[in-house]
Amino acid sequence: MPALEVNPDLQKERNTATFDPQEFSIYWAGGVEKYKEKKALEKLVLEDPALMDKLPTSYMSHKELYEDSLRKACLIGEKIRKLRADGEDGVDTYTALLGGSLGAAILKEGNPMSLHYVMFVPTIMGQGTMEQQVEWLPKAWDCEIIGTYAQTELGHGTFLRGLETRADYDASTQEFVINTPTRTAYKWWPGGLGHTANYAVVVAQLYTKGEFRGLAPFIVQLRDMETHQPMPGIDIGDIGTKLSMKGVNNGYLGLKNVRVPLNHMLMKNQQVLPDGTYVAPKNSVLTYGTMMFVRCVLIRDTAHSLAKASTIATRYSAVRRQSPIDPKEPEPQIMDHTTQQLKVFPQISKAIVFKIAGDTIWNMYNVLSGELEQGNLERLPEMHALACCLKAICSADASAGVEICRLSCGGHGFMDCSNFPAIYGMTTAVCTYEGENTVMLLQTARYLVKVYGQALAGETLVPTVAYINEAIKLKQFVNFDCTLESIVKAFQFVAANKTRVAYEQIEMRRRQGHSTEVAANLSGIFLTGAADLHGRAFLAQTAYTELTAISKQVSPALADVLKVVLELYLVDACLNRIGDFLRFIEFTDADVTKLEMRLESCLKRLRPNAVALVDSFDLHDRVLDSALGAYDGKVYDHIFESIKKNPLNKEPVNESFHKYLKPFMKAHL
Amino acid sequence: MPALEVNPDLQKERNTATFDPQEFSIYWAGGVEKYKEKKALEKLVLEDPALMDKLPTSYMSHKELYEDSLRKACLIGEKIRKLRADGEDGVDTYTALLGGSLGAAILKEGNPMSLHYVMFVPTIMGQGTMEQQVEWLPKAWDCEIIGTYAQTELGHGTFLRGLETRADYDASTQEFVINTPTRTAYKWWPGGLGHTANYAVVVAQLYTKGEFRGLAPFIVQLRDMETHQPMPGIDIGDIGTKLSMKGVNNGYLGLKNVRVPLNHMLMKNQQVLPDGTYVAPKNSVLTYGTMMFVRCVLIRDTAHSLAKASTIATRYSAVRRQSPIDPKEPEPQIMDHTTQQLKVFPQISKAIVFKIAGDTIWNMYNVLSGELEQGNLERLPEMHALACCLKAICSADASAGVEICRLSCGGHGFMDCSNFPAIYGMTTAVCTYEGENTVMLLQTARYLVKVYGQALAGETLVPTVAYINEAIKLKQFVNFDCTLESIVKAFQFVAANKTRVAYEQIEMRRRQGHSTEVAANLSGIFLTGAADLHGRAFLAQTAYTELTAISKQVSPALADVLKVVLELYLVDACLNRIGDFLRFIEFTDADVTKLEMRLESCLKRLRPNAVALVDSFDLHDRVLDSALGAYDGKVYDHIFESIKKNPLNKEPVNESFHKYLKPFMKAHL
Repeated sequence: MPALEVNPDLQKERNTATFDPQEFSIYWAGGVEKYKEKKALEKLVLEDPALMDKLPTSYMSHKELYEDSLRKACLIGEKIRKLRADGEDGVDTYTALLGGSLGAAILKEGNPMSLHYVMFVPTIMGQGTMEQQVEWLPKAWDCEIIGTYAQTELGHGTFLRGLETRADYDASTQEFVINTPTRTAYKWWPGGLGHTANYAVVVAQLYTKGEFRGLAPFIVQLRDMETHQPMPGIDIGDIGTKLSMKGVNNGYLGLKNVRVPLNHMLMKNQQVLPDGTYVAPKNSVLTYGTMMFVRCVLIRDTAHSLAKASTIATRYSAVRRQSPIDPKEPEPQIMDHTTQQLKVFPQISKAIVFKIAGDTIWNMYNVLSGELEQGNLERLPEMHALACCLKAICSADASAGVEICRLSCGGHGFMDCSNFPAIYGMTTAVCTYEGENTVMLLQTARYLVKVYGQALAGETLVPTVAYINEAIKLKQFVNFDCTLESIVKAFQFVAANKTRVAYEQIEMRRRQGHSTEVAANLSGIFLTGAADLHGRAFLAQTAYTELTAISKQVSPALADVLKVVLELYLVDACLNRIGDFLRFIEFTDADVTKLEMRLESCLKRLRPNAVALVDSFDLHDRVLDSALGAYDGKVYDHIFESIKKNPLNKEPVNESFHKYLKPFMKAHL
Repeated sequence: MPALEVNPDLQKERNTATFDPQEFSIYWAGGVEKYKEKKALEKLVLEDPALMDKLPTSYMSHKELYEDSLRKACLIGEKIRKLRADGEDGVDTYTALLGGSLGAAILKEGNPMSLHYVMFVPTIMGQGTMEQQVEWLPKAWDCEIIGTYAQTELGHGTFLRGLETRADYDASTQEFVINTPTRTAYKWWPGGLGHTANYAVVVAQLYTKGEFRGLAPFIVQLRDMETHQPMPGIDIGDIGTKLSMKGVNNGYLGLKNVRVPLNHMLMKNQQVLPDGTYVAPKNSVLTYGTMMFVRCVLIRDTAHSLAKASTIATRYSAVRRQSPIDPKEPEPQIMDHTTQQLKVFPQISKAIVFKIAGDTIWNMYNVLSGELEQGNLERLPEMHALACCLKAICSADASAGVEICRLSCGGHGFMDCSNFPAIYGMTTAVCTYEGENTVMLLQTARYLVKVYGQALAGETLVPTVAYINEAIKLKQFVNFDCTLESIVKAFQFVAANKTRVAYEQIEMRRRQGHSTEVAANLSGIFLTGAADLHGRAFLAQTAYTELTAISKQVSPALADVLKVVLELYLVDACLNRIGDFLRFIEFTDADVTKLEMRLESCLKRLRPNAVALVDSFDLHDRVLDSALGAYDGKVYDHIFESIKKNPLNKEPVNESFHKYLKPFMKAHL
């Protein structure tokens, strides 16, 4: 990017950085090849004038926003067609175009056709028979039909068995009759369902021969292919405005005696024969795989959100000057205030660690996928437990981190032109979708309590929980010496003890006569606490292992910076859970003060490289889309540009003056 | 309110509550008289059909939203005129009509004329001479002119000395020449400044006879009285969309050689004589009074936000059924999940405690006001320190609490029809305006460190910090016995020790050769921590004292409930800062477990009265404006009503299908 015409304070930061940001950018992108691919894709998408906003979406009405979103979604669809034709599509391309980086640069409030690519097509691939794939996939890939995935209902989300939509098989016509018998049975939330999709995979409770069979997916036509009018029996529309993702066209769907032919049920895993005979799936484990896949992607997304937010806050903190530290001196860059560093820098370190954790769990998932296909299910529960708590922790921490970054920019962070409101909306949504965070933590906790019992019985546990074996042996944690290794070990010891307490709580309540389930409910505080620490211990361990490894492969200059990042991450993580540390480990007041001083020292050491470090996330100005965070640091100029786009400012006097204000002001004369 | 046609689960909660909600409602409103006034004002405002939204604001474009906001602001202005004429206006009326209760029910995104009433008029009253008041107040009260208060600039907010707008006195014409010499000097943020106000109090750096004199306020005409066109030299407009308060018409203002006559400077405190001679103010302490007044109001506002959010979440938790606790049982009300109670109930207790703290500090402020007018400034620093940290703590906790409530409602909390997004936007704004929270904490900390030094020197401290004397005497906290008194005492001991550590940090750095200011900056982590605990110790003490006192005045049934509220508040507050407790007080792992079990027990005991307790906040359905939180609990019906209002759903096929989607889908055929 051009070094010319950059805010001098920001340029000074870049000139005095001690490492080459591009070295880290290449690592961050996943190597030289991927770095080049990323740049090429950015060029293809971000330089297309048709995809540039003249009017920021925040000025549009909900209806205008939808219409503009659909326009751009179709243009992106064209690009995907072309990339596919050239053989240049792939998971990374889809993630970038439909997700939080390039996708959000073009469609800040989300893409009404995302679910077609990321749910409709993959569901047909994963759950359709070969014949069904041959029938549906070409049409879907060519976008002759646009689909969505309709599972969640108004009355039920996470608890799938509670879904009310039902499909009754009618052997006389070889059709399923699908109904949403109540208001709460209405499908609710699917992206693109409102006015965009003309097909959907609808998940329903299956009944054949009058017997309940479990959930099954059906391909249902929603709208006429030519007129786009809703098909008979279909009640459909947009669910309305939301905290964010306002362009996604999340929809509702009621079905009244909608008939679909037998072969519209996706039958790879379970079958209904023409006479209504039901053939159950061999195992239901494969659906775990998909959920885990999605959660691994989400962990990476949270890292991306933090990278965006911390880039904006760091650059702004270098440009903004306010409040002298010493009254005799001029106003410093606000980044020189320790309290400002305390807000922003830990978010940089979390962005890096969450990315690394996302990559690590992604690799674990790929190994597991191979094992699953071999019929080896051994590591599935362990991986599931890990993905659940990491999804919860990373989304919660990233949401909080984005808000800390926003607040660190004072009032200006509150303006939409900062882009913080949109980034927060996208990030906090992850706390709820694909498994509500508390439910996620409870799933992890259930696993932890189970393996704790096994460990007590003398069993050797699988790798990611092996620390529980050690803690049981150790009983007391000795020699906490504040080294990074020792913080990692202490995290594991604390996590093991949180699981112990949860385990003991459940046992105690069982002894009091409660069922295991009721005992678990009463112990909710303890269970979520244990799952939280399990995830944090994994993050600490992974940060330590991976950043130490990377440091050995890169230039000494970059290695020095990464070491500070690691130390900052671990010390901050430890202080954020200091209550748990003090509870289970011998610590004095002076030890805590020492840790706090160490935190301050990390901040001070990161200070000279903070701008270069966020530069090395290599986020395009259009991805950041922030007057406060642009590469050139011309914050106030960009803010002035933003007010020129405001439709209210196109005329000096708004007509409402004549209509309302003047009559009101003159009424008393 | 009618008991008919209420969701049966919600009705069951009301039937089985053990106390009368109205008893608490009356206390909450401030007594029977105020309760009646509240009801009358609600009737006046909420039953006016002109003030009811046909189209929810979230569906409007920014421009439409402004125009509709101005329309309603004028109608409210009419009502205020009438109330004034009838002698029925007062601080409570203004707070309700322009603030977060009735104001937000009518103008969810804020009122573009608020600043006229709450800043423009009071500034003329507080800083204008008698002649100036006679000249300007009648016009302002009658709304012949609409004003705003322009202080904050694009480049400077909290640090007032950094403001760049300047006013140079020209003795030859007896005028001030006002300029914003740079882009960063532009006034930025004042509500109503964009297109609504035609006058403003502009704060500028005053120069007379070529010498700098400090800040001064000037009455400046912005727009022509008849045409509303901007006056010569005035560059003015709306700053654009924001996280919330989108209807407030926050504006920007550039001034180029704008001349105002000598008597447009507000001269009650300082004067400029016709020849340019400057007469300095006697003392600048009185402006502290105004800031403190505003912060006291803000503390109450945060309580109101939490009351709204916790009412919505509690009612929804009684209506929503999901996920069996025991697989053999039907799905329970989600309020029966301990993890759900853990999210929502502490927010109820905080709403009550913040309200009580707001009332307490309001009374302290009134006593202080009287003392200030007598020239007695003794308690000013103490009160200032307290108001600063409470504003920071209550706004931060309330923002977090609103988000916890939103997330506790799963995906449905994400929809605008839940009203959580708007409540969050209003609440988190308080973290930044009227003194950025970190700056607030640092101001409190500066005071604490100073008095700590005095205590070490043997001085007896003023009441709100007297606990520091005790802690120094005590050295070690003995006999923590988990009683509520003991938690309150422990909070004070911990707060004193946090101040000690901050004090020691600064002293250490001074010994290392740093100036006091630099030492304070380096100790930012410790200082903000100390201020945080000071505020929390005050909240704990106040909650204990006041709730214990109230419990003695009310029926035994209500007293029992309030005791649970107090216990829940204190145990939760203690566990949220458990790291600090463990750091300074002898505690075992088993003690912590005991506290956590006690938390669970409080939740369980509050469970039967949770709905009745939020009912007793007595929030009108239009104030809540939430499909999830309405009094009748007909959640799903209200959600269905909300989709009918969505303009996108007025036609089955959106025109964008023909324009974009169909050509795209057919392109490949």
